Amino acid sequence: MSNVAAPTQFVEVSGQRYAFRRFGAGSGKPLLCLQHFTGTLDNWDPAVTDPLSSVREVILFENAGVGRSSGEVPDNISRMARHALAFLDALSIDSCDVLGFSLGGMVAQQMAQDRPSIFRRMVLVGTAPRGGDDIMHLEKPNLAQHFRNPALRGYEVLKKLFFVSSPTSQAAGEAFIRRLAQRQEDREPLSGPNVAAAQLAAFREWERAREDRFADLEHICQPTLVVNGVHDDMIPVSNSYRLVERLPNAVLLVYPDAGHGSLFQFHASFTRHVKAFLASDAKFAPY
Amino acid sequence: MSNVAAPTQFVEVSGQRYAFRRFGAGSGKPLLCLQHFTGTLDNWDPAVTDPLSSVREVILFENAGVGRSSGEVPDNISRMARHALAFLDALSIDSCDVLGFSLGGMVAQQMAQDRPSIFRRMVLVGTAPRGGDDIMHLEKPNLAQHFRNPALRGYEVLKKLFFVSSPTSQAAGEAFIRRLAQRQEDREPLSGPNVAAAQLAAFREWERAREDRFADLEHICQPTLVVNGVHDDMIPVSNSYRLVERLPNAVLLVYPDAGHGSLFQFHASFTRHVKAFLASDAKFAPY
Repeated sequence: MSNVAAPTQFVEVSGQRYAFRRFGAGSGKPLLCLQHFTGTLDNWDPAVTDPLSSVREVILFENAGVGRSSGEVPDNISRMARHALAFLDALSIDSCDVLGFSLGGMVAQQMAQDRPSIFRRMVLVGTAPRGGDDIMHLEKPNLAQHFRNPALRGYEVLKKLFFVSSPTSQAAGEAFIRRLAQRQEDREPLSGPNVAAAQLAAFREWERAREDRFADLEHICQPTLVVNGVHDDMIPVSNSYRLVERLPNAVLLVYPDAGHGSLFQFHASFTRHVKAFLASDAKFAPY
Repeated sequence: MSNVAAPTQFVEVSGQRYAFRRFGAGSGKPLLCLQHFTGTLDNWDPAVTDPLSSVREVILFENAGVGRSSGEVPDNISRMARHALAFLDALSIDSCDVLGFSLGGMVAQQMAQDRPSIFRRMVLVGTAPRGGDDIMHLEKPNLAQHFRNPALRGYEVLKKLFFVSSPTSQAAGEAFIRRLAQRQEDREPLSGPNVAAAQLAAFREWERAREDRFADLEHICQPTLVVNGVHDDMIPVSNSYRLVERLPNAVLLVYPDAGHGSLFQFHASFTRHVKAFLASDAKFAPY
């Protein structure tokens, strides 16, 4: 099975419809995948989801107001986490693993805070703790230039935002957007400005530090794998440093020559590491 | 073969005798192992060297003035690197892989600067770039307390210096010093205060930043794996962050609940990662 062909499914909970895809199989718990800023189910790179689906069931989730999920996009991470928990409840999943990328990594952290039993192991990629630094400031010149560039059509802007300027990284970006285009039918509608606005508001709220900055991370005891590209302009790698410094049980993996989309650039390495990490039943994160 | 039993060998180059051990086999290049502050050949944990020696020849090197190597301990990293290169020349090894731990990681970086062809792939553990932060300040109260504690005999001080205070890390430290004691015969003499004094002088010299801090790292293009414990009081993890931020081709792996001796604490994970990293012939570090 593949995210190129897996049908979009729907589940309804008290009037709220969630879109999702579910494919693959394995003896372990399912792997819930939580998506990045404005991303839909179609933004999951098959080079990441498909190898993982060979060892366990992968569940791609579309939060409220995104793609064909109904309702309003929440303007804070807490409400996004509540939606994701309601979705898992609707599927009668009381424990799973999670892969949270960027915004999705924040939602995963909030879910683990709100319901510690929900995740067995967590993979957090290109994300930040509450109170983190320089989170998704799209107004920064090095990011804004790409949004303002009319030559970048469709997914081409992702090649600039998720990859660094080196020829190797840009070539990986080119391959990435080709893979995203492989799915021809049953695609999700693109996110509009309302999705972006609400999710940016959520980033601003998440960026505000609580009194004891990062102390809440000490309650997330799940074995966790934190992954980042070393040159990430959207959510700098320093946020991943802070995550592993305060999470009690987290391994950090940082990729060179890579930005926000390190998992897509090094998909073969990334899925190998995630498979090894998820295959472990040890109490400790090192794999 | 094992570091518990491998005989100490000697090679002489223009009047300078180097002690070393050489064991294991594999199709790849040999793996040169460069040791930490005051460490001798006997300080290489068999739980690290032995699994690696199952996939390639491991060469443990004792620098000048340490153990049964003759001569004076150099008081700077450059001269230590020259000794290590002279040793490899004496063994007719013109290219190998390297595992440099702490002081040994600095020597490895200097060797790569001085002779770029010498290393195919590099593993740098618990180390720092030239100009790094807070390198081996044994006068800091949290380190000095262990040196001053008369209850810590022999290797017991290593349990305090290389491991964090958690019960899990201390238990790993206990197991580590038991493993170091396994070798009964043909042991090296312990390092005396003259070794410590010269190596501390080398740390102070290495800590001095050059004009463009860390810029020299951009010339080390070998695929590199950088490893650190997240709570390292001897050479803080920030030094490993700086390494991967400026080395063009380096992956970072950080372990939780671990200090300077993360490779000994998580020896099973560490050797698995190092084997996978060294097995790759790719131009890029990700494995």
